Amino acid sequence: MTQRIEQKLQAIRRHMQDANLDAFIVPRADEYLGEYVPKHNQRLLWCSDFTGSAGTVIILKDRAAIFTDGRYTIQVKQQVNAECFEFYHLVDTPHMAWLSEQLAAGENVGFDAKVHNLNWYKNSVKTLSEKQINLVAVEQNPIDLSWTDRPLPTQEMGLLLDQKYTGLSSFDKRQKIGADIAEQGADAAVISALDSIAWLLNIRGKDIHCFCVILGSAVLMKDGSMTFFTDPAKIPTGFDAHVGEGVTLAAESEAAAAYQSLGEQGLKILADAETSNAFCQLSAQAAGATLIPGTDPAAVPKACKNSTELAGMQQAHIRDGASEVRFLAWLENQVAQGNLHDEAFLSDKLTSFRAGNEHYVELSFDTISAAGSNAAMCHYNHMNGTPAQLPMDSIYLVDSGAQYLDGTTDITRTVAIGTASDEHRKMFTLVLKGHIALAKMKFPAGTNGGQLDSLARQFLWQQGYDYDHGTGHGVGCFLNVHEGPQRIAKNSVGVALKPGMVVSNEPGYYKQDDYGIRCENLIYVVDKEKGQDGKIFYQFETLTLVPFDLRLIEPALLSKDEVNWINDYHAEVMEKISPLLSGADLTWLEQATQKI
Amino acid sequence: MTQRIEQKLQAIRRHMQDANLDAFIVPRADEYLGEYVPKHNQRLLWCSDFTGSAGTVIILKDRAAIFTDGRYTIQVKQQVNAECFEFYHLVDTPHMAWLSEQLAAGENVGFDAKVHNLNWYKNSVKTLSEKQINLVAVEQNPIDLSWTDRPLPTQEMGLLLDQKYTGLSSFDKRQKIGADIAEQGADAAVISALDSIAWLLNIRGKDIHCFCVILGSAVLMKDGSMTFFTDPAKIPTGFDAHVGEGVTLAAESEAAAAYQSLGEQGLKILADAETSNAFCQLSAQAAGATLIPGTDPAAVPKACKNSTELAGMQQAHIRDGASEVRFLAWLENQVAQGNLHDEAFLSDKLTSFRAGNEHYVELSFDTISAAGSNAAMCHYNHMNGTPAQLPMDSIYLVDSGAQYLDGTTDITRTVAIGTASDEHRKMFTLVLKGHIALAKMKFPAGTNGGQLDSLARQFLWQQGYDYDHGTGHGVGCFLNVHEGPQRIAKNSVGVALKPGMVVSNEPGYYKQDDYGIRCENLIYVVDKEKGQDGKIFYQFETLTLVPFDLRLIEPALLSKDEVNWINDYHAEVMEKISPLLSGADLTWLEQATQKI
Repeated sequence: MTQRIEQKLQAIRRHMQDANLDAFIVPRADEYLGEYVPKHNQRLLWCSDFTGSAGTVIILKDRAAIFTDGRYTIQVKQQVNAECFEFYHLVDTPHMAWLSEQLAAGENVGFDAKVHNLNWYKNSVKTLSEKQINLVAVEQNPIDLSWTDRPLPTQEMGLLLDQKYTGLSSFDKRQKIGADIAEQGADAAVISALDSIAWLLNIRGKDIHCFCVILGSAVLMKDGSMTFFTDPAKIPTGFDAHVGEGVTLAAESEAAAAYQSLGEQGLKILADAETSNAFCQLSAQAAGATLIPGTDPAAVPKACKNSTELAGMQQAHIRDGASEVRFLAWLENQVAQGNLHDEAFLSDKLTSFRAGNEHYVELSFDTISAAGSNAAMCHYNHMNGTPAQLPMDSIYLVDSGAQYLDGTTDITRTVAIGTASDEHRKMFTLVLKGHIALAKMKFPAGTNGGQLDSLARQFLWQQGYDYDHGTGHGVGCFLNVHEGPQRIAKNSVGVALKPGMVVSNEPGYYKQDDYGIRCENLIYVVDKEKGQDGKIFYQFETLTLVPFDLRLIEPALLSKDEVNWINDYHAEVMEKISPLLSGADLTWLEQATQKI
Repeated sequence: MTQRIEQKLQAIRRHMQDANLDAFIVPRADEYLGEYVPKHNQRLLWCSDFTGSAGTVIILKDRAAIFTDGRYTIQVKQQVNAECFEFYHLVDTPHMAWLSEQLAAGENVGFDAKVHNLNWYKNSVKTLSEKQINLVAVEQNPIDLSWTDRPLPTQEMGLLLDQKYTGLSSFDKRQKIGADIAEQGADAAVISALDSIAWLLNIRGKDIHCFCVILGSAVLMKDGSMTFFTDPAKIPTGFDAHVGEGVTLAAESEAAAAYQSLGEQGLKILADAETSNAFCQLSAQAAGATLIPGTDPAAVPKACKNSTELAGMQQAHIRDGASEVRFLAWLENQVAQGNLHDEAFLSDKLTSFRAGNEHYVELSFDTISAAGSNAAMCHYNHMNGTPAQLPMDSIYLVDSGAQYLDGTTDITRTVAIGTASDEHRKMFTLVLKGHIALAKMKFPAGTNGGQLDSLARQFLWQQGYDYDHGTGHGVGCFLNVHEGPQRIAKNSVGVALKPGMVVSNEPGYYKQDDYGIRCENLIYVVDKEKGQDGKIFYQFETLTLVPFDLRLIEPALLSKDEVNWINDYHAEVMEKISPLLSGADLTWLEQATQKI
């Protein structure tokens, strides 16, 4: 029987009482602190019915409150029972400040240290201690104790990724990152990011939809040896030989004792206070470890793809490009015949073209298939309602990608359905000009994505337009489609772009209730030729190989250089994709890549 | 009799011994922590002979060391006696880390809390306390006690700046900023920046060369009342009526007691840990005050010029532009006659054109007059050696500006001497394209200068060139020519550009040992027209009114929009400057602003 929210809160409160807690905090995050939370760890959803991607619940003895941001002001009231919860905006009313107002000195706030990062813990201790309120780490999460029909974690086997795809053995990676850890003055590092673990061990999994990772956590020692706390049942035979010397598998339940032991040895432990959970750091520290705040030592090496990975990414993009081209050719033909399909049908059709590809594993994210005005919502999902049918004389936006054994793809094309308007053409061209400006830019070593962001916006800005999302995110190689640490966005500083880093190049424009445009290719950083004064300069190469819709381009708005860029790009698409095509698809591509 | 360095160090060490100090730290900064240090406070120079603009001396009982950065590696060895000092690079060998290695637990390091900021103090305490070394604030600076022929501070009278120039009374400014202080939860704010004090009180002075400020410090209360610790002898009659109610003048020596008293009242004091000296904050805190870390509350209001100030800046730029035009006309005529003057003569000549202008006060910085290859050094100063003569068929760079009662100017023009080469023309045009891209950009509210920087570099970057300085700095109104908090530079984040902010727009290119190019105008932010989707967009208006050298422009490298921008700008220069000119100067301007 499904528990109702009141019953769930009642159960949680009983466990709170047993543990002498006056409040308990439920964040959306789970113990892996990643962007996506697997079903069996969706504690916030379970206790509140709220499906949004950011929020916090606070349960008091006789009240409860939910804190969400501006994106979810409406949704939270539709989904969450107002008889059980008070609603707050998390910026106007920070949850810990609110909580400190509700409680008296000496009362106890419970939290599960596994689902919070260390920075949250430190800030919360500070806020609560000003009012002499205690922050108490629970031994067992009251939600886990109350959740009677909790789904089991997936039991799918992981896979050992061959060195022909990874380019570097796990042993070599661990030696290198171990040395980096030593250089930072640490004896060991907490590796929390699931994709960092997968990268270090050259393994992949299916524990999270679209993410090719295996759930768990890890400690990497400065000598390159590593313990992976996970469900060993998911690890395929041959793992030991695959990863080479120095890797120990252990159950997740053994992590606590391991951190205790690291502490008892008085080791110095590198951990990211923002991305690693508080539990492991506090456990180690309590037992005697010294914490060295830093960033995930695998993040930058993972982001800088080696030549094998880049070759794989290129191959994956050729196959993926052919699928997208087949889809676009099919779509144009359907529209010409008057078949205006709905968003779900189109999405499934596109997936079917991809699914037949060599090395295909799964999609890299849920396809955004957005007809007409739905595309004005950047992150539209046709699954949240009735999929809309393509309107005639409109533009259709499709943002999609796949995971292949040799690489990850992510592409957005905006295409004319029937006849596009002058405004569509003008706005598409302004977006494309920004895409081109970024794609062909050279920049000195040391430049970060925050410095390049405005290059992609300048033509829109010049006419008073902008878009409310970043210009580019990092992309993994058969790993997360959103990968750090580099990004191209407003106010994004810190991490310089380095050779081998893959990023998306996706300026857009969205007119509310009317239409949406995005031009997205993946690009990567290359160190191709020196600057003029002996300085090191980098530039980008494009991975994605699919034509931009010529019907949406207004040549009068393009410079000669921009026209050349488009023609050169389309010639490259034709050269690399045409060998995989024949018949009507090939004819379509010839048309779609003709010179302007 | 001039003391020799050994004698000076001996004297300092005697005072160190009296105070039981094992080391004493001498930074370049003085108690005002500003960019320029007046002669009577150049303690680092006095004890080391080092004239550079950044460095620290540490004096131990029997050794001394000087720490400088990469710019000064050669200079420091030329100027500083190696028998008295060891030399260190301050990045490779941070001075406090070095010091903690030299001393034993229990030893005492002296410092003058007035000449360090609070962040330096906190970091240094941390570094030294790890080795149980004590950081001791001296009551009297051993240098001041040893400096027998110390110059007196200037005794020039300040001036009361009329509201027809400031646009807002001191009373109104203090009321507004006082309310801002209250809004930040503070009772008072430490105002350390000399230009903030000058702005708040609508006074100016001549205590620092080119800076129109009066030395001192101030406390602004949340009710708008203010105490200015200064030499009251410099304050002109009529000050009380000029500033309105609530301003107290006090000697600088009374500041300590005042901070003590603020502390005893248990007040909350807003202070910038980076720009306010440690002394005032530690004194207040020790007496019971709570420090609220923040930024100078006058900084942003001062940066956003009001309409009176902007009108004054425009008028100042018309007069200043006419002077620069007269100089450029004269220069071209001299070169045509074969008179290739030297840099000093040119600089003096330019100053003479400016000095006759209405409202002229002084230069806003020492003119950079750089012939031929000297211009390859961004901050060349012809006074540091023999001024060079203009080479024929070269380019000449002149960066100059003035302080007027109604505004401050800062302009760089690069001009052909004889026939410029194709390379000169190409590089000048690439620099100018960047200047134009920034000058005509629109951008959404919230954008900061770090986001705009690459727009000015993109044409150079595209061909593998760059310049090693920021693209723009803030500029005061009859105040500092380098004014925060906004700037346009790589990795500069934080402060958004707001209407009324004045910044320089000065991309450049420097080829070592060959030539230097810089195109600098002052521009300011205006909120002129809305963006397209109801969003607030800003743009720039140009203040500086002097033609760019048409002989250095390569039209083939310009877009139609860029050609239009140049023609429109030159038409505006002609329209606004020609009424001030006649004869040969007017003829020259007509030629120099003809359409391309």
